[in-house]
Amino acid sequence: MLSFENDYNVGAHPAILRRLSETNFDPQPGYGFDRYCESAKEKIRRELGDPAAEIFFLSGGTQTNALAISAMLRPFEGVLCAATGHIASHEAGAIEYTGHKVLPLPQKQGKVDPQDVSDYLENFYADENRDHTVFPGLLYLSEPTEYGTIYSKTELQKLYEIANRFSVRVYIDGARLGYGLCCEESDLTMQELANCCDAFYIGGTKVGALLGEALVFPRGNAPERFFTLIKQHGALLSKGRVLGIQFDTLFTDGLYYEISRGAIERAKELRAILHEKGCRFYLETPTNQQFILLEDEEYERLSKSVALSFWEKPDRSHTVVRFAVSWATTREDLEALRAIL
Amino acid sequence: MLSFENDYNVGAHPAILRRLSETNFDPQPGYGFDRYCESAKEKIRRELGDPAAEIFFLSGGTQTNALAISAMLRPFEGVLCAATGHIASHEAGAIEYTGHKVLPLPQKQGKVDPQDVSDYLENFYADENRDHTVFPGLLYLSEPTEYGTIYSKTELQKLYEIANRFSVRVYIDGARLGYGLCCEESDLTMQELANCCDAFYIGGTKVGALLGEALVFPRGNAPERFFTLIKQHGALLSKGRVLGIQFDTLFTDGLYYEISRGAIERAKELRAILHEKGCRFYLETPTNQQFILLEDEEYERLSKSVALSFWEKPDRSHTVVRFAVSWATTREDLEALRAIL
Amino acid sequence: MLSFENDYNVGAHPAILRRLSETNFDPQPGYGFDRYCESAKEKIRRELGDPAAEIFFLSGGTQTNALAISAMLRPFEGVLCAATGHIASHEAGAIEYTGHKVLPLPQKQGKVDPQDVSDYLENFYADENRDHTVFPGLLYLSEPTEYGTIYSKTELQKLYEIANRFSVRVYIDGARLGYGLCCEESDLTMQELANCCDAFYIGGTKVGALLGEALVFPRGNAPERFFTLIKQHGALLSKGRVLGIQFDTLFTDGLYYEISRGAIERAKELRAILHEKGCRFYLETPTNQQFILLEDEEYERLSKSVALSFWEKPDRSHTVVRFAVSWATTREDLEALRAIL
Amino acid sequence: MLSFENDYNVGAHPAILRRLSETNFDPQPGYGFDRYCESAKEKIRRELGDPAAEIFFLSGGTQTNALAISAMLRPFEGVLCAATGHIASHEAGAIEYTGHKVLPLPQKQGKVDPQDVSDYLENFYADENRDHTVFPGLLYLSEPTEYGTIYSKTELQKLYEIANRFSVRVYIDGARLGYGLCCEESDLTMQELANCCDAFYIGGTKVGALLGEALVFPRGNAPERFFTLIKQHGALLSKGRVLGIQFDTLFTDGLYYEISRGAIERAKELRAILHEKGCRFYLETPTNQQFILLEDEEYERLSKSVALSFWEKPDRSHTVVRFAVSWATTREDLEALRAIL
Repeated sequence: MLSFENDYNVGAHPAILRRLSETNFDPQPGYGFDRYCESAKEKIRRELGDPAAEIFFLSGGTQTNALAISAMLRPFEGVLCAATGHIASHEAGAIEYTGHKVLPLPQKQGKVDPQDVSDYLENFYADENRDHTVFPGLLYLSEPTEYGTIYSKTELQKLYEIANRFSVRVYIDGARLGYGLCCEESDLTMQELANCCDAFYIGGTKVGALLGEALVFPRGNAPERFFTLIKQHGALLSKGRVLGIQFDTLFTDGLYYEISRGAIERAKELRAILHEKGCRFYLETPTNQQFILLEDEEYERLSKSVALSFWEKPDRSHTVVRFAVSWATTREDLEALRAIL
Repeated sequence: MLSFENDYNVGAHPAILRRLSETNFDPQPGYGFDRYCESAKEKIRRELGDPAAEIFFLSGGTQTNALAISAMLRPFEGVLCAATGHIASHEAGAIEYTGHKVLPLPQKQGKVDPQDVSDYLENFYADENRDHTVFPGLLYLSEPTEYGTIYSKTELQKLYEIANRFSVRVYIDGARLGYGLCCEESDLTMQELANCCDAFYIGGTKVGALLGEALVFPRGNAPERFFTLIKQHGALLSKGRVLGIQFDTLFTDGLYYEISRGAIERAKELRAILHEKGCRFYLETPTNQQFILLEDEEYERLSKSVALSFWEKPDRSHTVVRFAVSWATTREDLEALRAIL
Repeated sequence: MLSFENDYNVGAHPAILRRLSETNFDPQPGYGFDRYCESAKEKIRRELGDPAAEIFFLSGGTQTNALAISAMLRPFEGVLCAATGHIASHEAGAIEYTGHKVLPLPQKQGKVDPQDVSDYLENFYADENRDHTVFPGLLYLSEPTEYGTIYSKTELQKLYEIANRFSVRVYIDGARLGYGLCCEESDLTMQELANCCDAFYIGGTKVGALLGEALVFPRGNAPERFFTLIKQHGALLSKGRVLGIQFDTLFTDGLYYEISRGAIERAKELRAILHEKGCRFYLETPTNQQFILLEDEEYERLSKSVALSFWEKPDRSHTVVRFAVSWATTREDLEALRAIL
Repeated sequence: MLSFENDYNVGAHPAILRRLSETNFDPQPGYGFDRYCESAKEKIRRELGDPAAEIFFLSGGTQTNALAISAMLRPFEGVLCAATGHIASHEAGAIEYTGHKVLPLPQKQGKVDPQDVSDYLENFYADENRDHTVFPGLLYLSEPTEYGTIYSKTELQKLYEIANRFSVRVYIDGARLGYGLCCEESDLTMQELANCCDAFYIGGTKVGALLGEALVFPRGNAPERFFTLIKQHGALLSKGRVLGIQFDTLFTDGLYYEISRGAIERAKELRAILHEKGCRFYLETPTNQQFILLEDEEYERLSKSVALSFWEKPDRSHTVVRFAVSWATTREDLEALRAIL
């Protein structure tokens, strides 16, 4: 069946599979001490222009979020997050499982406003009872957000400046980072993003890898004994090479960006088709996900020929669905969609 | 460099890489709802003769242990385990991180004795203060053990019977299950092992996969909403297919056993070489790991040409090292080792 | 200094101190197995007309909330709570520390609306992605609420009925239960309240005791091995008698209600004085707490002669303060306040 | 019934009850900010000759242990403890509930040997796989131990010196500290003990208080925002004064030591009686607890007229019981015991 369900519905970019085969019989140490991990880290450090950056390869987004956030928080702290943020609403309580509260912030189209963050923090420190409450220790952002929207460079800088003023650290979830950086509306480079946070991750799973996220602590500020924490959280792969080989490939000859740009091209074509067919955009975004409002019967009918993602029910007779494209979406897929719509 | 360091020092069995390529562009639902996972589960259920078995694919051993054990325990319970068990000593406190105590049992060559388990449980229930202590809720075993030794069918049955008598459940860590089942000294089938426990996992990472373990709850007794718990622990892969495809391959035409038997063959040859060269066995085992006592200088010298695993220091001048073979070890590797020794 | 700061600013009702002295040298078993605890439990069971009710004496409200809620929740569940509920905002993340998410509900004057609860639960079960999110397992209410407002019998019944429909359990925080039950506007008895929930606690600390809350699981449905969980959470007192003696006294000859009614009388007099002096009520309540809006300078001036509780800052130039009375507030205190205002 | 069951079988020292009554109607701020807490802290600081000592009053021993230890440990660390230590065996897994492992050490009569600690730490840092295991972050000691034995000044100094050498901190559980310091065999003052550790607590519950332990961080090194952590763990009493008044009384005119010496006197008389009656000491100790080996029938018979504590069953026909005295034990109690034996 034709699928616009998500950006993780097929395997990996062929270059990755090729590289896994080529390196298959090279014996290497386990747990990420292999030469592929080393090489991948080196390439990412170069990309960021940050020789002190500390990089860890993990398997998935929720794992990376829970591990990084819990390691960065002190025991009396919680994490600020848009009420629609992934950790607030779609990770089955993974952050709370580590003992920390997610402190919800107002949001617009998935984004938090610097003014709201500033107000929250000022009110917090004006409250005489604050010692009886959870301290805000970290600000969680995502680029792009869960709604496919993006932060501008100025917005990120402002958020980082506000956070710093209150000794709050900033963490950026980059599950789809490539799509955020490579869309036309973005004025950010990965290096600039790294300069506006204390940690972020470069999403691999949704940008061409079989699995894998590269967690980066810029400027050498990884939490103490982070390797042991990875093990403690059950997140250490014996064959760390599996992640290293993939990121080494993604950061060779700009493959990560090439993949991302391809998806953004397809997304533009998708938007054109959706407009042409008179679909009602619940949210039109600059990245690879588009949100369309359908009547429930339309949704049901369409579901028979195209795999889509249920997003939410704004009322009793409508459904919001997500159309996603990825590096693997083809022109043929789009033509087939046009025919169906 | 020649490597006998462990059984996870290369990539995957070529059949797995081939299958990943073949299926790469087939769009499938995420999170393990793809048809490869379904097919793999079906094959494992058939292997176990247990149509009600519930199966979940996870990424690694520590993750599987922590997730399964914490889900099986009630909040006032801990897990019984040989003092040398993997969860007791080599997982960075992953079980305690979930809030549960590991209750150490005496061990011999990595194995627990049914009598010791029975004594522990009888003493526990004879103690008038037991309500102030951790209740034993689960018995953790590994097959083969961390020392490469194996339980016989009779031993497992006895352990399961004792555990049942005290309402203690049994969980078997099968990180290297194939090597345990396929060695000559074993009188167990996978189905018989499944009948002696409430959960176990079939190790993939160390038996030919890139990564992956198949957690099995025989006879349909998975913990409630285990899928959501997988997500909560950060253990859910978006591309669940990556695990499904591998296990589907491993359980097609007996590949899992073929791989395991191959390693056991190499292990026999390794033992022969080690004996021939007069090495002192700290522990000679029926499976794919052998433990050799070396003088520290010998260890240092040997380390220059062969990658080995440090195991422990029994005294100030000796080191115990582990020689491991795997499905990927070749006759040439063994000849090279012979030459070096 | 004159104090209307809270309802826990003095010691205990004199009858309690007397009883502690009288029983002081009677040797009794520890950990709540003394005869005073037994007697107190028996009296509460009689009060509730529920011979199967299981009762545990604990030290404080946050402790009771965290212990009861975490024991009642399954690992994949969270607790629904008004966004202003005590566990959501004033307990330093104690619930999250136990690994569970607090799921915020809309509120009015501290109360949740049955319709909002019903909508939440219907939407939750209509969401196709719910297995990736936290399941609502418990509804936390407080009677009276943090804002001194109360639920009627009909409201509680409706909430309990809705919760039951979705297999959600109900827990009622009764830190100030006496004041809620004894105010004129209330149409509830303790027994009726017990019939509308799966657990609740009878607040002692704020209703005449030195410390202590009586956690009740009506109709015999305490979580398994709750005694051991109390110990595990560090909440078990060696001298359990200290709590038993106090609750035995409070439930002898209706002292609990006598204390509560006294405070409600004082509260009515306080409201009259505040009205008489033209104070602006931010919230006027039927119970023992009143919320007054002051200009910041007024607040500062008043603070010099009367101890009050800072509540919140609705804007940059005003402060909301709480005036609280208790069983120990005297007519003289009120006259002194009148003179100051 | 005559009771030698434990040292917490009656209420409080009469001076404490008196003081609770005298101060009952003095309105004071909550949460430990009252003047009694302040005064008590000041007296303890003077006792320790340490004006920078930070002191927190908590309700019970397990609570204090879990809170202090979890706050002092970093997430990748565990706590070293004699296998018989209270946190290892009698606190229902309260430490593990906070996510940390208790690392058992060999013990003799409840004490750990400096050499064993040193060996453990040396082996740990010699292990090449240590990053996969729990780091020892804290050494838990108790004075006196669970077996009533005591450490000498030299032993404590040696243990502290070894711990420091490996950046391990030292915490001393002083549930019965008074009895440890005031026995004839002790060569320690409270100040000297404070100099040999990073935190300890002065037990109140078992030394004359209704409840309460004074947790001390000498030289001003309390964990960050410890007040908020107390709240988060459900350990903050609204009426903090209840603990402050008690410790203020205990540290006025040396009452704490007077109480302790009285118990030690009674303990000497108890030992004389037990010897005189030919009882078999399982362990004779310098403090207020004695361990006697009884045949099971003797135990059963004696239990009818004297409340004793079951300790353990060394074999199928014998029981070890604990005889405990306290500040409240009288000469008459001892004479009555003599008559029964």
